[in-house]
Amino acid sequence: MKRSVAFQGELGAFSQVAASQLAPDYSPFPLNAFDQVFEAVAKGNLDVAVIPIENTLHGSVHENYDHLLKYDLTIHGETFVRIVHNLIAPPGVKRAQIKRVYSHPVALNQCRHFFEANPGFEKTPFYDTAGSVKMLMEDGLTDAGAIASATAAGIYGARILQKSIEDDRENYTRFFLLKRPQTRKAARPVAGIRYKTSVVFTVRNIPGALFRALSAFALRDLNMTKIESRPLRGKPWDYLFYVDFIGHTADPATAHALGHLAELADMWRVLGCYPAAGK
Amino acid sequence: MKRSVAFQGELGAFSQVAASQLAPDYSPFPLNAFDQVFEAVAKGNLDVAVIPIENTLHGSVHENYDHLLKYDLTIHGETFVRIVHNLIAPPGVKRAQIKRVYSHPVALNQCRHFFEANPGFEKTPFYDTAGSVKMLMEDGLTDAGAIASATAAGIYGARILQKSIEDDRENYTRFFLLKRPQTRKAARPVAGIRYKTSVVFTVRNIPGALFRALSAFALRDLNMTKIESRPLRGKPWDYLFYVDFIGHTADPATAHALGHLAELADMWRVLGCYPAAGK
Repeated sequence: MKRSVAFQGELGAFSQVAASQLAPDYSPFPLNAFDQVFEAVAKGNLDVAVIPIENTLHGSVHENYDHLLKYDLTIHGETFVRIVHNLIAPPGVKRAQIKRVYSHPVALNQCRHFFEANPGFEKTPFYDTAGSVKMLMEDGLTDAGAIASATAAGIYGARILQKSIEDDRENYTRFFLLKRPQTRKAARPVAGIRYKTSVVFTVRNIPGALFRALSAFALRDLNMTKIESRPLRGKPWDYLFYVDFIGHTADPATAHALGHLAELADMWRVLGCYPAAGK
Repeated sequence: MKRSVAFQGELGAFSQVAASQLAPDYSPFPLNAFDQVFEAVAKGNLDVAVIPIENTLHGSVHENYDHLLKYDLTIHGETFVRIVHNLIAPPGVKRAQIKRVYSHPVALNQCRHFFEANPGFEKTPFYDTAGSVKMLMEDGLTDAGAIASATAAGIYGARILQKSIEDDRENYTRFFLLKRPQTRKAARPVAGIRYKTSVVFTVRNIPGALFRALSAFALRDLNMTKIESRPLRGKPWDYLFYVDFIGHTADPATAHALGHLAELADMWRVLGCYPAAGK
């Protein structure tokens, strides 16, 4: 039986675009909510998961960082997907017939210039970008369009009337590929591949505590690619830190940095070590 | 004439709740988009602005950090608003009459337990939480409800049928009060008030560069309350850093730290210095 990749959203969602890059041999398995995605893989009901972790316009998806701490899954890969919105309609529907355009409100808001240039289209909020294409096709609407990915048009047999109608081309979402932890020994780095390691840690809320924790990386010339603080739930003045840096856990410098971090942090955990993706 | 506070959303949006705390003597002035809010105040058409900057579940609002760099406005205050969702209906409409419940998809998704417990309510996506209450009242719907703030119910004369139906009580949004830069000399700190200073800076993408920049704060025992990296647009491996720390720009330690940061950073800017809010 073909293995499955769980993701949140309808078939054709941007998470499925990411899944086709990170897990091309797996069948897409859409679920309603992120916690269902984590749970399905953690319990072994599905094989791997693909989840969004941050977006260049909207920031980190803290809900998924919470799930990474709660569920015992490991990051095995990352990819960046450019969010390209398209005007989509059922086959045979002409642009002049369209009165309403359905999509998720976030997507509608990311196409403001398009709606200003086309005042005859009424913005109509819907649950989901891909779901709006599915609905158009199922209901056989002839006076409506949708805004979604090209993948959604392909899946539901709809047609793209106008490509790339988003305001901002610098809109990227970063996705993680997650698997259950492997019982066998951690993989060795492959020569020529640049690896990234993601860690989460907490330090006591005293001045300089974070600075000392970061010295674990700086003293070994490890290059951080992300740092973010987040207040701990119920403890408004204590913080979690998310750090990504270039390095493989089997490299001596990385191993020493993690040993040093263990001395300095109250809690720490490696979320994964995986090939770094370019954008 | 009464002065105005600009915010994004309909009357009754959570931004208006924040505005009533940060600018209680100002008339609320709703606008459609964040850039309109910044522009109206920067050009002097409206007096002050209140904008969301981060949320405990959804992360930082990077769009507004971009606007803070683009427009010459200064942060004068912060507040945390707990996002409380309520089931709201027009007066006289009973719970048993309700078939559909309108709200923004993000709000609908934050009330999953409520919908699981009430399978007779159909989740219906709408542009805006407060806008859904406005629509119910204007259209005189008798078979529908909305999910929005208590403020929205009050403004549109609707009634709260059930309070606090959100899944997660740790859902807070942090808002900033923005004003045009003052020409007169910066205010002195008031004794007994704890101040926060927000800075943004870039450092060259070499290992240890951020660590050295943070030494400006750590060497002076300044306590950071937020740090976040963000890739620079069009330069995927260069980063902006947002740092908040406890201190007033007129304190010697803070002034020295900013002087030191100026040596170490390629670009830096103080976004504001304001009384710190508790959550």
